[in-house]
Amino acid sequence: MPAAASAPDFIERLKSAVGPAGVVDDPAAMAPYLTDWRGLYHGRAGLVLRPAATAEVAAVMRACAEAGVGVVPQGGNTGLVGGSVPDAGGASVVLSLSRMNRIREVDPLNFTMTAEAGCVLKALQDAAEAAGLLLPLSLAAEGSCQIGGNLATNAGGTAVLRYGTARELALGLEVVLPDGRIWDGLSRLRKDNTGYDLKQLFLGSEGTLGIITAAVLKLYPRPLATETALIAVRDPAAATRLLARLRAASGDAVTSFEYIHRAALDLVLAHIPDTADPFRAPHRHYVLVELAGAEAGAALRAALEAMLAEALDAGEVLDAVIADSGAQAQRLWRLREAISEAQAKAGPCIKHDVSVPVSRVPEFLERAGRAVAQAMPEAIVMPFGHMGDGNVHLNLTLAPGGDGDAFLAQTEAVAELVHDLAIALDGSFSAEHGIGVMKRAALRHYKSPVELDLMRRLKAALDPKGIMNPGKLL
Amino acid sequence: MPAAASAPDFIERLKSAVGPAGVVDDPAAMAPYLTDWRGLYHGRAGLVLRPAATAEVAAVMRACAEAGVGVVPQGGNTGLVGGSVPDAGGASVVLSLSRMNRIREVDPLNFTMTAEAGCVLKALQDAAEAAGLLLPLSLAAEGSCQIGGNLATNAGGTAVLRYGTARELALGLEVVLPDGRIWDGLSRLRKDNTGYDLKQLFLGSEGTLGIITAAVLKLYPRPLATETALIAVRDPAAATRLLARLRAASGDAVTSFEYIHRAALDLVLAHIPDTADPFRAPHRHYVLVELAGAEAGAALRAALEAMLAEALDAGEVLDAVIADSGAQAQRLWRLREAISEAQAKAGPCIKHDVSVPVSRVPEFLERAGRAVAQAMPEAIVMPFGHMGDGNVHLNLTLAPGGDGDAFLAQTEAVAELVHDLAIALDGSFSAEHGIGVMKRAALRHYKSPVELDLMRRLKAALDPKGIMNPGKLL
Repeated sequence: MPAAASAPDFIERLKSAVGPAGVVDDPAAMAPYLTDWRGLYHGRAGLVLRPAATAEVAAVMRACAEAGVGVVPQGGNTGLVGGSVPDAGGASVVLSLSRMNRIREVDPLNFTMTAEAGCVLKALQDAAEAAGLLLPLSLAAEGSCQIGGNLATNAGGTAVLRYGTARELALGLEVVLPDGRIWDGLSRLRKDNTGYDLKQLFLGSEGTLGIITAAVLKLYPRPLATETALIAVRDPAAATRLLARLRAASGDAVTSFEYIHRAALDLVLAHIPDTADPFRAPHRHYVLVELAGAEAGAALRAALEAMLAEALDAGEVLDAVIADSGAQAQRLWRLREAISEAQAKAGPCIKHDVSVPVSRVPEFLERAGRAVAQAMPEAIVMPFGHMGDGNVHLNLTLAPGGDGDAFLAQTEAVAELVHDLAIALDGSFSAEHGIGVMKRAALRHYKSPVELDLMRRLKAALDPKGIMNPGKLL
Repeated sequence: MPAAASAPDFIERLKSAVGPAGVVDDPAAMAPYLTDWRGLYHGRAGLVLRPAATAEVAAVMRACAEAGVGVVPQGGNTGLVGGSVPDAGGASVVLSLSRMNRIREVDPLNFTMTAEAGCVLKALQDAAEAAGLLLPLSLAAEGSCQIGGNLATNAGGTAVLRYGTARELALGLEVVLPDGRIWDGLSRLRKDNTGYDLKQLFLGSEGTLGIITAAVLKLYPRPLATETALIAVRDPAAATRLLARLRAASGDAVTSFEYIHRAALDLVLAHIPDTADPFRAPHRHYVLVELAGAEAGAALRAALEAMLAEALDAGEVLDAVIADSGAQAQRLWRLREAISEAQAKAGPCIKHDVSVPVSRVPEFLERAGRAVAQAMPEAIVMPFGHMGDGNVHLNLTLAPGGDGDAFLAQTEAVAELVHDLAIALDGSFSAEHGIGVMKRAALRHYKSPVELDLMRRLKAALDPKGIMNPGKLL
């Protein structure tokens, strides 16, 4: 295969398929495509190609299929598990979708947008806003991640509780198949029961079954009012009951429900300038809640106050601060969003991306906290994150005076412990980040033989030559 | 194959797999399983089996896989396209899920329910309500259809606009595979990116890839307030703009948006007792709108009135009646729900289940109305239905004095005309009813070679012997 990948005729065929503007073959220019942004994964490739149209993607794919050369699709390259970086063999080509960045259509009456894979998420959010609508997919990397990658990895983010993951926002896809054929599945329909739902194969499959080149996305009305509150709760169990109470009493208007452990808040207060504890007394458990509704003026706020008063009476809530202004809401959000930054400043950090059913989050936090404390007495456990989706990040930092190298040397062992516990509570060892290279061994370990067999059958059915994003996921 | 299906050893093996209570072999008792409720499809089968547990389903499936005998999974047998009726060959066995009707769990903090495939939809709605929650899937057959069938056919119904189709309500599945293995995919997680999303294969695949034996369903808070209005609109284009306006102004609280053409209303008023036109003057186009919100008391109504006043000023709305009571809301809904009954009373009727993007519904209605009038001057076109999903039923009744047999003889020709037009407007020839037997030829006609090839690959990968619901869908 490396022979074919570097054969002059083959290289020329690829280059002519995308034209001079689509070829990156200078080693320095290629470098950013061959590593991830955190610098954890490094690979090699025969060539980086940047096609500008679906037909060009198809031509590249046809040539690679004939030659048996692997293709690594790449969007914004913002992933966390090495899924968009080629392997070290150098036998593959990287296919960047970044030049396919046209918004083909916004249809405000159908509440849909049709966009090419290389569109940066933020650009699509802006285009929806310009049409008076909302594209609810939102995540930390939105300024550089691309929608094709979001869909290929079924991205999560901060609005999953109300709007679902990327998969649930896709109505249709255009895909270049591993043999170079184009599947035009750009349906804009809410209802279409005509055979197998083929788009589901490619959503979340991390580029191992085909290359998403365009998509139809659902849009939503923009919320007319939002309310943000930081709420001190008695314990995580009270938090899950508060979530149920707020969902019921608000007409399911809860868009965010983020848990923050005191240890995480302390770290933010210590390391991030211009932050302050909004409460007079310290509490052990907080949730940051955002409600989005149609009520103009004071109605949504009054509703939130009434709900909190009930939760206070029920003993679930100990204290609460409701933002009085957009600026105050931003200050509350800053306490949540700065946690990763504070952890980075505080020293070495071990992160986990797990999920369990919402009802089991309290048990997970309790048991995981205890197990980690036992296994790693030098770790400070500071859970935080998307409790509303059951996706709490169980992050660990090093206690003052600890040995950083010894701490980080336990990364894999503690991951196994945390993953085992999530699985024992009917959870997942990768809630939103995917498998890529990082979690392939975990996939083989935790998935049943039946599941692995079904996945391999799908892979063999769609990519019999095994040339789509080789070495990823399976 | 028929030989194997009727071999005494094989029959004994099947009977012992399900026990005496699970065997239906008396011809009279078998009859209801061998035809659909409308009497359009009739088949034969070697045996009807009613397993009571997943392990029994697996044992039956293993035996049939070894013998190469076809299995026809059957839920409530309420489908409209012949998908759950065996073929005339008699070489298959019917596997009814009706005894698998346990609700395994309701988890109010996780907003999920785990139920077996044979649970009647209404029983699950009731169980959700008993827990203070809502299972939003709702359709005409809910008193007899079963959740396994709903999921296998990706059922739609009246709440798709707000909550999505059956597919979007499923978090996890338990499936018996064509070789008799059990896949336990009963995830209760909102976020789980660990490989291919296998449940998507079985949702909507009409029992051709495996047998759904249980599912985890999303539950929602119950709406605290609803408002219902019948609104006379200027034309269908004004209706689509009104929908966008209501979604935006209500915080996406529109749960139903049903179009009714005057011809359909006239038929109801003529044939259904105790119905009355709520307006003083007749109008040509109506929409029945339901909003569900969290606002207690008069807030939601005030909001609806304000929205309608704006739409009146914009010329979209000509007149509107907002229900003053639950009883009046029911009377308005009766005008919509009685349309099928009125059509049945009025004589022969030709029905179509198509969808187009919401923005193209007006063009579809205009062009389809014109084309049908030209092709069948004796037909009265009376479109109505789920405009909010782009799924308007273009039904035809016979003008007084027409020849019923001649009218019905054109069923296939006019279906082709209507389907061609839906496809030309980026629509679907089967919005919510599926393919079954009825639309197999249409599937082959309208789907691209690439799509058909992908579907056949999936079928071959999961059911290489072709024994799952033979002769359906593909």
